[in-house]
This record gives sequence, C-alpha cells and structure tokens, in this order.
Amino acid sequence: MQTDVLVLGGLSGITAGLSCRRHYPDKKVVLVRKEGTVLIPCGIPYIYGTVGGPQNNVIPDGLLETNNIELVKGEAVSVDREHKLVTLKDGETILYDKLVFATGSLPLVPPIPGVDKKNIYAIKKDFNYLDSVLDEMKSVKDLVIVGGGFIGVEFADECRKGRDINVTVIEALSHCLQMALDDEFCAEAEAKLLETGVKIMTGVKVEAFVGDEAVSGVKLADGTVIKADMVILGIGATPNTELAQKAGLELGFRNAIKVDRYMQTYTDPNVFACGDCAEKQSFFTGRPTGVMLASIATSEARIAGANLYSTVHQNCGAISVFSTIVNGRAFAVAGLTERQARQYGMNIVIGKAEAPDTHPGGMPNSTLIKVKLVFAKETGVLIGGSISGGKSIGEMVNVLSACIMHRMTADDIVKFQMGTHPALTSSPIAYPIVNAACKAVLPIRQ
Amino acid sequence: MQTDVLVLGGLSGITAGLSCRRHYPDKKVVLVRKEGTVLIPCGIPYIYGTVGGPQNNVIPDGLLETNNIELVKGEAVSVDREHKLVTLKDGETILYDKLVFATGSLPLVPPIPGVDKKNIYAIKKDFNYLDSVLDEMKSVKDLVIVGGGFIGVEFADECRKGRDINVTVIEALSHCLQMALDDEFCAEAEAKLLETGVKIMTGVKVEAFVGDEAVSGVKLADGTVIKADMVILGIGATPNTELAQKAGLELGFRNAIKVDRYMQTYTDPNVFACGDCAEKQSFFTGRPTGVMLASIATSEARIAGANLYSTVHQNCGAISVFSTIVNGRAFAVAGLTERQARQYGMNIVIGKAEAPDTHPGGMPNSTLIKVKLVFAKETGVLIGGSISGGKSIGEMVNVLSACIMHRMTADDIVKFQMGTHPALTSSPIAYPIVNAACKAVLPIRQ
Repeated sequence: MQTDVLVLGGLSGITAGLSCRRHYPDKKVVLVRKEGTVLIPCGIPYIYGTVGGPQNNVIPDGLLETNNIELVKGEAVSVDREHKLVTLKDGETILYDKLVFATGSLPLVPPIPGVDKKNIYAIKKDFNYLDSVLDEMKSVKDLVIVGGGFIGVEFADECRKGRDINVTVIEALSHCLQMALDDEFCAEAEAKLLETGVKIMTGVKVEAFVGDEAVSGVKLADGTVIKADMVILGIGATPNTELAQKAGLELGFRNAIKVDRYMQTYTDPNVFACGDCAEKQSFFTGRPTGVMLASIATSEARIAGANLYSTVHQNCGAISVFSTIVNGRAFAVAGLTERQARQYGMNIVIGKAEAPDTHPGGMPNSTLIKVKLVFAKETGVLIGGSISGGKSIGEMVNVLSACIMHRMTADDIVKFQMGTHPALTSSPIAYPIVNAACKAVLPIRQ
Repeated sequence: MQTDVLVLGGLSGITAGLSCRRHYPDKKVVLVRKEGTVLIPCGIPYIYGTVGGPQNNVIPDGLLETNNIELVKGEAVSVDREHKLVTLKDGETILYDKLVFATGSLPLVPPIPGVDKKNIYAIKKDFNYLDSVLDEMKSVKDLVIVGGGFIGVEFADECRKGRDINVTVIEALSHCLQMALDDEFCAEAEAKLLETGVKIMTGVKVEAFVGDEAVSGVKLADGTVIKADMVILGIGATPNTELAQKAGLELGFRNAIKVDRYMQTYTDPNVFACGDCAEKQSFFTGRPTGVMLASIATSEARIAGANLYSTVHQNCGAISVFSTIVNGRAFAVAGLTERQARQYGMNIVIGKAEAPDTHPGGMPNSTLIKVKLVFAKETGVLIGGSISGGKSIGEMVNVLSACIMHRMTADDIVKFQMGTHPALTSSPIAYPIVNAACKAVLPIRQ
C-alpha cells in the first residue's frame, strides 16, 4: 500500500487528516489506528453516568469517509524512515511521503504494591476495556478513586449517578484539583463533591492495594485500610511514544516527541507529531509543559495537517484551557492560575469579580459567577483567568483564551465590548471579566 | 451644591460614576437622575413574562452608596457651561468641575395617524410607566406589536407567557430582526416565534391606528385592519439630547452628542458623554452608527469615567455585540453580518460550521449550534460572526467579540485554543468557531 500522507492515531489523527484534506485536496490520506472506534476522550467519565455507555461516546468515522480519508484498522509496529515505510502487526506495509504521529497517551500506573490486582483500572481510551469496567461496576459497593484531578473528580461525580455505592477519592496533595485550580476554587469544588455523598481524603498517600486475586482495600501510609471492591486510577498519563522512539525520533520532556512550531519533528522533516504524544511548550514561558488536553491536541493537529507540504501555521504554545463540572457547578481555567504564576516567580496583579449569570439575578436558574484574573504587573497583559459558575462559563473561559492568545491587557479588557442578554449573561454593568480587569488597572500602574 | 464630577443619567451614568470613583478616589461624584429607580434596559421585555414585574428588574442603588457616589433624584433642566452650573427642575443648582452626559435615549414614536390613542405604548425606560403597561395587559385580548426588531420579538415571546392572548408582530421589512441578522437566522427566529402561536406579518406598513379614545385596530397600507386592544411600538430609539443641545454642545449623527475617542465632547473639554446619547463610530469603518446597546453604553461609560482627569482609555469604536432568545433558541451577532458587509461593498469570505453544544451530542439538552463567520478577503481579518444555538452562545459570541477586537485572522482562529467539556461545549474536533475559520482559510488565499 502507498499513500501521500499516513497518520497514526486517534482523535488528533482524525483532526490532522481533516486539516490535511482541507489544505491539500489532491493528496491521498490514510489513517491507521488499532482501536475499532475512537472515543471522545473528555467524555469518558460520563460513560459511567450521564451518557450511559461507551457506545454513546464515539467519534463517528463518517467524518473520515466524507473527507476521503482511508481508514486502516491495525497496529503500526515499526517505522523505517529511510524507506518511508510503516509495517503493521499483521505484516501489511504502507509507503508514505509524510508521516504524522498522533499516538496519544497512556494512563500512568503507579508502582504501588498490589496495583496489578483484579478490579484496579487505569482509564485506557479503549472501548471494550471501558465497557467491561462499566459492566464490573454493576456489582461494586465500594469504589475508591486514586487521584483527585479532573478524571478522578469527574469519575466520582458520575459513578454515583444511578448507583447506590460508596465513593472515596484519595488525593496526595492537600486539595483535589490542586494542579489545576487555585485553592479557593478547589475548596468550592470539593464542597460540591461532598454534597453528593462522595468522601474525599486529601494529603493522603496510598501505600498498597490489598486483597487476594481481586482488590479488597486500599492501604494508606498511616496504616488505615479503605474498603474497596473497585479502584480507578486517575493519576495522569504519559506520552505514547514507544514506536516513535523505536523509529529513532528525538524525544524530549517526559518522553514526548520533540517538535518545532510547525509540529515537524526535530529528527525528520517528513515526520510530524501532534497531540498528547508531542512535546508542548508553554505559551507563557516557552518551557516544556506536560499538559494534555484534547483541545490542545486538536489545535496542534490542525497545525500539523496544514503544514505537511508547506509552512502554513505556527503553534504559539499551550495556553491550557479547560473546564469541568462538579455536581452541577462548573469550573474553568484559561492560562495560568495564581499559584502557577507565583511558582514561576512572576510579578502579578489579581483582579476578582462576581456577578449572577443572568440579569436581573432573579431570572430562573440564575447562578453566581466568580472570576479571578491574573495579570503580569509590568505589562498589564492577561496571563490567566479562573471562573466558577453555571454552564455559561464553558464558553466564558474561551473569551479569556482569546484575550490571552492576543495578549490583551487589563486596559483592553476594561473596554471589552461584550454582548449581554438577561437570560444568557451577566448584566453589562456587572460583567465580571470586565469588572475584574477594572479592579486590576490601578494596581498594575502603581 | 458643589461637586467635582456631575453625572446626568441612568445605567451608563452609574457605570461612569463607578469608573470615575475607581480612577479618582478623592473626587466627589454626584449622579443626578429623574427616575426613582433605574431599570435594567435589556430586561424590560422580560418584565412581561419571565421576570414578573418591573420591581424585579432594577439596578440596585446600593452600588452608588458603597462607592460613595451621591445620588440626587431630580431633573436637570439647564446647563450653564460658562459658570459650570447645572440647574434642576426644583431650582436646586449644582456647580461642577467635570460634567458627564449619560442621558440615554427615548423611544421613537412614528408620526402615524392615531398614534396618540390610549393603549398605544412606546417602551419608555420608566418604572411606573412600564408597571402600568403590565397592569393594562391583564385585560388585553389582542396585542399588536409594531416593529419586529429585538424589542418587538422579545415582547412578543414574553407577553404570551402565562397569558391567553393573540399577539401579532407587524414588520415593514421582509423579515423580523432583519436589521440585526442575516436572512437564514431571521427565518430560524421567525419559525421559533411562530411555534409559540405569535402571528408575524412582514413587508407590511401601518397606515393608521383606529378606534375611539382607545385603540381598537391597526390599519395596514392595503386597508386590512388588525384587531388590537393594545399596541406596543418597538421601532427604535433616538438620543435624548435636548438638554445637551440647549447647553450648546455640538450634535452629530441622528442628534447624538459629538464625542472624540476619549468620550470628551467636541465642544467643551470639561464635558463628556457616553451611552445612547453619545455619537458612536463603527469599529469597522469609522463612520457614525446609530447602534444602541447597553453593552456599548457601559463600555463607553467606563472609558468616560476613567478619562475625566487624565487620558486613560481610548474608544476603539462600536463592534456591536448582542444576543437574544426566541422561544428557547438563542441568536447572537458580533460585528458585521454578511448583509452589512456586502452593503459596505466589502470583499468578504464566509465560513460556516455546525456542531452540537455538548459532546457527545447525546448529552441531555444538547442543542445544535450554527456559526457563520465573515472575514475580510484581503487581510483574512474576522469582521463579524453570527451564531444560533442554546444558552452557551451568549458567551460564545463574546469569544467572537474578543477575536474581532484584536483583529484576529482566520489563520489565528484556526489555532484558537478553546477549552471544551462534554456538558458545556462542542467537542474539540467540531468546535464550530474554529471549523468555520478552517473553511475560510483557503478561499481567503485564492
């Protein structure tokens, strides 16, 4: 088999293929992946509650067909870059002109004694695997989730829906979501999660998983054993780059594939990489960052696909924008939190504001929005924003992302012309992004 | 009485006062207005349905107290700029150092025969007036709304809630909302409104209001009479600048007060103006524009308040960002519609995309979002965007506003890093603002 463009991988692979198709309509594009279907990664926790099963959380392959991208289901096992040849597990070979690694990430499995017991699951992005977890969960009474990051908190919130089970989240840091949110937002999220009946243990380390063949408990450093007939591990992920390494591609931070701003590998001008398997640089510092988000992956994929035959788009670095919901309250961050900015030693000014997400506040289902903006003191440039509130903050954080991407200052944001509507937004007088910026203007000048 | 800063007016008056207080903590600020309470202007249609009454749609004066802004309830009847003295109707005089006109607008009353009959209401931003309309509406059977703009459509949608009345909207143009939206969005909004049982008559002119003392019908140009025991006029507003004119301030487009980019009047360096009473320039063309939006008014007020004693902020011109809901579906525009851009004779490229506002689309209450972006062909710069969808588009249109304000190009938006979440946004692969930009990239280059 022979192709112009060969893409290896799932979600960002599809996006890279679509981008390539758009920019280079005449090129043959083949996508190789081992998964039968590609799951929506951010939807995985919702399989266990709101969405009802993995079959409802699939990216349809129709996108590939309608864009004339050929799908080959198989596992690439070696890459011969000299002859531009990829070999699949079943022996098939594919000659390529341009190769894109979009091989994603694998869940981290911590080297804790007993971690290989039955009923302990790291969350792989695999349909059948996740389906079997769903099936197992039917008989579970005591679920322990190790790791209180997004995955852990979302799983905890979802797994209780429609199930009468005990759920305990164990987090080594002093707050859940501490890597992602500032303390006051962590506390708010924890309070919402506690309302559902989920137990949270923070500042606590897992020493071992106990039980016979199957797990029966989680032993903590102080000797306490938490009863568990299922354990979910949500402690992070690592770039899936074994094949890339075998192919001789240079790896960087945390073994991610080294790429330049065009998503071209350092090693081979005909090989590109995007998504979780590719090294990322921070938009703010230029340093490598381990952040993994589907939104960054697809952004990189659009860049990679466009650049295959011509330098079209540059990657400006990872801003890191995300949102989540905990028991009906939404939390979101774009860019740096106050904690992260201070860790970098940055001189910053904080602006905060609150407002109902409707106006008047008495409209049905009105929810209080809290906004916290982080500005660089010397320049007044927005470098981060955190929001909690109702569903509208899912897009409100994207307003902040646009402001950050174009390095808007507090002065710019004071003059921001937002559309407002009684049922859809805060009032124009109280719009909290603008008011938070207003509060920062003078401290920035002082 | 003597003050440093005297502000005349309502909503934008409050915002100008707050901005002044923030920038000049030591200045005495007095706000004069004739209204007992200030209504949230965009909330006025909702008084007649969702919100329940004008008492639930008030901007609390506590904001003034906590910011040490003195409120004087009274009507300014003359301004002596030479002596920097304002006289109120009750004879009180106030000496000022800086004066801000924030006198807003008045509803247009068309010179149609019979327009002065009882039960014909132009929508004044006046608590008691609107309360009496609410009271009158209790006995109404046939409500006719003249004008199918935002006010007209929102009133039509709201007035049917909890009332068994016939509502007819009469619009002279060929579509409702035609001044605001492109045809396909107008058609979508009209279809939603028709579902509620509201009748819509477009391309129709009112010739006269018939009846004795009170209105009993609306006579059209073709002789048809539409039965009506109440008529609401929603045909626009005109700057409230009679006092400014008497004070010798130069007026411009549609009699709005001429101001520079600092919101300083052309005529007097100690007099500023903001909001509906101040002349606006288009962000896109620099030409005068008659757009009136609370969000523009408050933005201008923040600028005016900051500039009273020092040139702090410049006004970049009106982008015009707004949103509305018709029978549960939301519509929003930032910047130019395709129609407006073509009327200006601009060479443009359109990019369109659709996606569910959740991912997977099977999440509860998922709603299809439609996005249409307008780019300047020569430069690729985003000059407008229209969206319809669910509640999230209230903030999504503000993403577009931020992109427009910083003159982001289709290339920039392709690389936009949006946060996504299953319950809050479209998927990262389908995010329609980005995908609409993707579709425009190649046509822009061709």
